[in-house]
Amino acid sequence: MVSSSTSQVKKAIVFIANGTEEMEAIITIDVLRRASIQVLVLAVETSTGAITCSRNVRIVPDAYLGDDSVKISTYDAVIIPGGADGAATLSQNAQVNSVLAEFYAQNKIVAAICAGSLAIKSAGIQNKVPHPICLTSHPSVKDQLKNDFVYKEDRVVVDSNLVTSRGPGTTFEFALRLVSLLVSEDKAREVAGPMMLNFEI
Amino acid sequence: MVSSSTSQVKKAIVFIANGTEEMEAIITIDVLRRASIQVLVLAVETSTGAITCSRNVRIVPDAYLGDDSVKISTYDAVIIPGGADGAATLSQNAQVNSVLAEFYAQNKIVAAICAGSLAIKSAGIQNKVPHPICLTSHPSVKDQLKNDFVYKEDRVVVDSNLVTSRGPGTTFEFALRLVSLLVSEDKAREVAGPMMLNFEI
Repeated sequence: MVSSSTSQVKKAIVFIANGTEEMEAIITIDVLRRASIQVLVLAVETSTGAITCSRNVRIVPDAYLGDDSVKISTYDAVIIPGGADGAATLSQNAQVNSVLAEFYAQNKIVAAICAGSLAIKSAGIQNKVPHPICLTSHPSVKDQLKNDFVYKEDRVVVDSNLVTSRGPGTTFEFALRLVSLLVSEDKAREVAGPMMLNFEI
Repeated sequence: MVSSSTSQVKKAIVFIANGTEEMEAIITIDVLRRASIQVLVLAVETSTGAITCSRNVRIVPDAYLGDDSVKISTYDAVIIPGGADGAATLSQNAQVNSVLAEFYAQNKIVAAICAGSLAIKSAGIQNKVPHPICLTSHPSVKDQLKNDFVYKEDRVVVDSNLVTSRGPGTTFEFALRLVSLLVSEDKAREVAGPMMLNFEI
């Protein structure tokens, strides 16, 4: 069972950094917002400008990590997109590590896609429970994860409150699974309909 | 046959406006850049700030329509994303209409997805050739197009140098088709591989 706040409106943080894979970030943000989930695009860089993503799309975040106005503990989910450089920055950020570990311990949704799964390892989530945790990632970082987790090759892997996925081409499935877990499967179906996907949920 | 410059590097303009569907814009930009196509994200708004997309993602464009530094005639393709409000702005912009009509007449790629197909009609492309033109769009705008075009319901429709598609969930197919047409099918396959899509090309 996934823990969530009693509020009707669910809230999710999507962390971004320079080098974040923009498709993985934007598809997730957009699909969750279509489901009326409040999404905060939270940058970890210290600058106050736009974030330059992996293919040079520049995104203006909603807030920066460290902004006093951001009450991270009020959120129901935290999401780490991929992109090698962005995922490295997020994995190496002590505050991001803490947020992931705390959300996981509180049974809130912790989600990562592509190279973003490396942040799950950096946060030490694999040491939080006595049994091995199932996870997936982009194949390019499998070797960095396979000894610490039960490595799966499914397009989306849900293990308790940990949700992981593989790359840009699995992001719609990843985001819709998050909608199912945070809101409902009916909401995920309702959101999927007008998007003209090539799969059913 | 699609006309293209003799230069090795292909160049594409993606128009954006406030209300553009961010998934459709970003997936297209990212996939084309993965194929080493030079993409210019060109905003039509007169402001110099970020563009606020349909689900409130804020994107900083590479340039604004009217910038002297932008030599539109040097590009090989022009692409119109959807999002109701963004597509309306792009459709109603006289300069965008001219670019679409000129590129079409010059046998360069003219591409639109979702409500973006409305800009094809506004540009009067349906009147440029003696035979009816095939096109698709998001189903929500079909009624505005079906009397002027041979309306198709395929996920991507290619009619000579006009390429159209349906919505966020068809954007990977749309972008990869543009890569095939601008570069090669081999390049599209090479780019598709690491993205972990759920279809073959």
